Amino acid sequence: MNNDIRVPGFLANGISCGIKDDGKKDLSLIFSETPAEAAAVFTTNIFRAAPVIVAEERVRKGKIQAIIANSGNANAATGAQGHRDACAVTGKLAKYLNIDESMIVPASTGIIGEPLPVDRIIGGIGTLADGLKPDGIESAAEAILTTDTFPKIAQRTFTAGGRDVRVCGIAKGAGMIEPDMATMLSFIMTDMAIGRSELEKTFRKAVDASFNAISVDGCMSTNDCVVIMANGHAENRLPREGTRDVRAFFENLLAVTDSLSRSIVQDGEGATKVITITVEGARTKREARKLAGAIANSNLVKTAFFGGDPNWGRIVSAAGAAGIQLIPEALELFFEEVLLFEKGMGVQPDRGRIREIMQRDAINVRVNLGMGNKSFRMYTSDLSYEYVKINALYHS
Amino acid sequence: MNNDIRVPGFLANGISCGIKDDGKKDLSLIFSETPAEAAAVFTTNIFRAAPVIVAEERVRKGKIQAIIANSGNANAATGAQGHRDACAVTGKLAKYLNIDESMIVPASTGIIGEPLPVDRIIGGIGTLADGLKPDGIESAAEAILTTDTFPKIAQRTFTAGGRDVRVCGIAKGAGMIEPDMATMLSFIMTDMAIGRSELEKTFRKAVDASFNAISVDGCMSTNDCVVIMANGHAENRLPREGTRDVRAFFENLLAVTDSLSRSIVQDGEGATKVITITVEGARTKREARKLAGAIANSNLVKTAFFGGDPNWGRIVSAAGAAGIQLIPEALELFFEEVLLFEKGMGVQPDRGRIREIMQRDAINVRVNLGMGNKSFRMYTSDLSYEYVKINALYHS
Repeated sequence: MNNDIRVPGFLANGISCGIKDDGKKDLSLIFSETPAEAAAVFTTNIFRAAPVIVAEERVRKGKIQAIIANSGNANAATGAQGHRDACAVTGKLAKYLNIDESMIVPASTGIIGEPLPVDRIIGGIGTLADGLKPDGIESAAEAILTTDTFPKIAQRTFTAGGRDVRVCGIAKGAGMIEPDMATMLSFIMTDMAIGRSELEKTFRKAVDASFNAISVDGCMSTNDCVVIMANGHAENRLPREGTRDVRAFFENLLAVTDSLSRSIVQDGEGATKVITITVEGARTKREARKLAGAIANSNLVKTAFFGGDPNWGRIVSAAGAAGIQLIPEALELFFEEVLLFEKGMGVQPDRGRIREIMQRDAINVRVNLGMGNKSFRMYTSDLSYEYVKINALYHS
Repeated sequence: MNNDIRVPGFLANGISCGIKDDGKKDLSLIFSETPAEAAAVFTTNIFRAAPVIVAEERVRKGKIQAIIANSGNANAATGAQGHRDACAVTGKLAKYLNIDESMIVPASTGIIGEPLPVDRIIGGIGTLADGLKPDGIESAAEAILTTDTFPKIAQRTFTAGGRDVRVCGIAKGAGMIEPDMATMLSFIMTDMAIGRSELEKTFRKAVDASFNAISVDGCMSTNDCVVIMANGHAENRLPREGTRDVRAFFENLLAVTDSLSRSIVQDGEGATKVITITVEGARTKREARKLAGAIANSNLVKTAFFGGDPNWGRIVSAAGAAGIQLIPEALELFFEEVLLFEKGMGVQPDRGRIREIMQRDAINVRVNLGMGNKSFRMYTSDLSYEYVKINALYHS
């Protein structure tokens, strides 16, 4: 298998059906030649969009064969009509593809509070489905974008159960990253044969360490949705819990979701830098995550990185206000390998070296709490004029 | 008594002792002619500045007679030396005023991680103390400012226990509002005679509904501190718990702290608007507060107000992600009297009217959860280019 973006047994396509004014692609379809095991993680926002509610129910019930996603309209805060509209789209697609409607997952991203343009979507379904092809993943990735500046695709190949296995994912936007709140979507395909329970466990672990470990502005949208389909076309032996094959699957799946989530931060609204916040030496992973999140979401920390200032005070202060127990004297703070804070006080670093680090577009920040051996890593972006501009000038 | 800013039995002064480069006032003293009952609320940040630690211990132990506060240096993240420096200042002042050092509260605001310029402060103590005067509160208010653009003073007179009673407060900065993180200080004076336990209870309630109900960027500094001194010079009858006099004191104290906290938001970094977020119809006050805070701290909500956009979707989404149980269909959202969201969907408002509201520099946002009768009100500011500029260009 070469490095083309494709996964055995999956077809995909992306077209313009006229939702977006500028003629850009806005309708995307992923199709598995056979029903696939599936797992998904959805937004926990109480104001969930209609397609999220429909999708969750269908993934819970059984196998999935297709994902249809539109950009340009989120079908959120649209009441009962929104639910009918989401089902009208999947109903039409089910007929066209001649598959069970309950095996189709809908997803939407874009403006909220406006009725889904069902007629345009349904009008595009023929062209969309007729164009399904093994190398259509890239066009599907384009068709889910909104304010993103580049499509996000990641792919890995590995060996499991005696076969080559592929895992490939596409994604758009970041947690509330875009002005219309339409947010983060990601669809993952693999030809691995894997039982539902193993798939679910592995998938949740990977999402937790990647999509749930990024911050652009700390907001969570009504439409966030990550779905994986595993169609078994690799015909590997079914892996059992805890085996090397499951670990290999996890590692490669995580490589894909990690790459996608990092791309989302990199393409965050107005972002000029990706900052990796690693909290280590924590008593529990929960505390490490909470602390990393407090730093990653601090506007003062994010503006300091935009300004290129190694402001350890803001990081230490964000840590101190995170609501977890700390020993101030035990905390150490590093930017790359440079120590900036220890024993409750700032350390005078090599100024030339720190200036060089602050000018990079990717910076590693490490906080060691000196209290245990648990750690957590998050990606965050800086906060720029451009972020304010994008979000202030956008009109609902 | 006229409307001059003064409180019987209190003297104050503010001078420049040379901490700030630009010759602005940077050293402030409030003195009560007799030891006063006191209460205080301090930052819960784990990395507390040295003066906060000293102040807390002294307020806990007994009466207070003076507060000395410097701006320009926070004496934070300064280790054991910071503690010695804070005590050196109060020790010198105690000798000069011939009072017990344990009755002096120190406070600092400004740059963190740099040694307190003790010599300059001690060098200024003579001039500072010699200049104490009944009408010196305004100069004391000036001397605690950092990046604030105006001094914050509020005063009320009322009747209790057969006497006229005055309560007056000064304040600076807002929760992490300023780039050096040196934050919020407020000192309140009253000539009310009141027992310590009543004072403490009433004060905490007022702080909770005012200083703890504002958001500029959701950050909490290492130096936040609010102190009240009650010297009893009004010679009113000591009020007993739950009486009309205690209520009158609470109402007037709250009027003062509310005015100060609103001024802090109004003077927030880059703020162009004060937005009052009222959450009502909640099951508990704790939930109402949590929801108001989630909306008040949302960057997407704050940038929308900066841009003048009535983006109900961002408010509803912030509410849905706040981590409390809601009934989506029961939530109603109003900007002033204009309904924007109900029954799970947006409402088309009068466009002219909503445009007029969005152009104001003070906007009331009301969220009714329809689940109970508890409420909470918060002030927040918008998020502007200027905020990013101030915080990105500041160098530590």
